[in-house]
Amino acid sequence: MTLLILASASRARARMLEAAGVSVEIEPAAIDEEAVKASLRRDGAKPADAATLLAEAKAERGSGRNPQALVIGADSMLVCGDAWFDKPPDREHARAQLLALRGKPHRLYSAVALARGGSAIWRHVEYATLRMRDFSDGFLDAYLEAEGEAVLGSVGAYRLEGLGAQLFSRIEGDHFVIQGLPLLALLEQLRVLGALPK
Amino acid sequence: MTLLILASASRARARMLEAAGVSVEIEPAAIDEEAVKASLRRDGAKPADAATLLAEAKAERGSGRNPQALVIGADSMLVCGDAWFDKPPDREHARAQLLALRGKPHRLYSAVALARGGSAIWRHVEYATLRMRDFSDGFLDAYLEAEGEAVLGSVGAYRLEGLGAQLFSRIEGDHFVIQGLPLLALLEQLRVLGALPK
Repeated sequence: MTLLILASASRARARMLEAAGVSVEIEPAAIDEEAVKASLRRDGAKPADAATLLAEAKAERGSGRNPQALVIGADSMLVCGDAWFDKPPDREHARAQLLALRGKPHRLYSAVALARGGSAIWRHVEYATLRMRDFSDGFLDAYLEAEGEAVLGSVGAYRLEGLGAQLFSRIEGDHFVIQGLPLLALLEQLRVLGALPK
Repeated sequence: MTLLILASASRARARMLEAAGVSVEIEPAAIDEEAVKASLRRDGAKPADAATLLAEAKAERGSGRNPQALVIGADSMLVCGDAWFDKPPDREHARAQLLALRGKPHRLYSAVALARGGSAIWRHVEYATLRMRDFSDGFLDAYLEAEGEAVLGSVGAYRLEGLGAQLFSRIEGDHFVIQGLPLLALLEQLRVLGALPK
C-alpha cells in the first residue's frame, strides 16, 4: 500500500480522512503561510490560485523529505468582497472579523494537492458560498462568550457544527470543502493513483 | 422561554439542534410513516409535498398533547428516478439499495414543520443532490462489512461523515438538509417567533 502523508497540522483535515477510512501519517509542512499569502496578494493573485499554490507548496515540502510517499497538501482561504481573512489570533480579532462578515455572503476556498518525489503531480480547488445573517450585537457578544477559544481555530471564526449555525442564513457547497478539504475529489484521485480501492 | 418539543426519534436531528444551542424536549410522534407515504404515492403526491405533509402530521400530533409548546416535526425522503427509498431493514436491503443508487444522482428531501395549539403554523422543505460513483461490487462488500449495523440508521444506507464518503463523486446542498433537517430555515423561523434571540 502507498504510504500517505498529510502535510497539514489541521485536526479537521486529519479527522475527515480518518473518518473516510484513509490512513495517513501527519507531518505538517513548515511554510510561512501569512507571508506567502501577502506576497501573492501584492502580485494580484486570485484567491483560488493562492490557495492552490499554498497547497502545492506544502505537498512539495513534505515530499522532499519523503520521496517514496504520496504527500497531501491543503489550504483554505476566506474571501469577502476584496478582503482576505485569516484565523483570528484572539477574541477581539474574531469579533472584528464576524462584524465584517455580518449580513454578507463570503466564499471559502479549499485547495488540495498531491506530490511525489518532491514535485506536485495533481491539484484541485473548490469553494462554498456562505451568507451570514444580520445578527444583533448582543447575539454576537453572547456567541463569543459561549464559544470561547473554539472560534480561534477556524479561518471564519465560526464552527458550523456548533453554535456557529446560528450565524448563517444560507450555505451552499460541499460540507467537506467548508471544513477545509475537497475530500471527494481527493478520494477520486487516490483511486486513480491506486492508493484506494475502486 | 417557549417550550420546544422535537416530535422525532432521530438522534441526528436532536444532535443538530443541541449543537446549535437549541434546547428541545424529545417526544417522538407515533405516525405510521410507511403507510402514509405509500398512500400519498398512490395519490400521485410529489416527494417534497409528501415529506412536508409528514413533517406537519408529526408536529400536529405532538402539539395535540402539548398545546402550549412549539412542536417541531420533520421528515426526509430519498428519491432516485421514479423510486422512493426508505431506511433499509437489514443488510440485504441496504446492499440492494446501494446497487440501485450506484452511478446515479439522487435527491434527499428534508422537510420541517412547526405546530402550536394542535395546528401546523409553518412548514419548509429543501433538497440536496448527491451522485454516487460507479464503485465495484468488491468495494460494496467491503463497505457493508466495515459499516455493519450503522448503515441501517440512514435512509440512504450511508453515513457521509464516515466511510460513506467513499461512495460519492459529488454532493450539492446544505449539510444539515442531508442530515435530515433544514436547520438554517428552522432557526430563522424560531427567531421570527421569538423562541431564539436575534
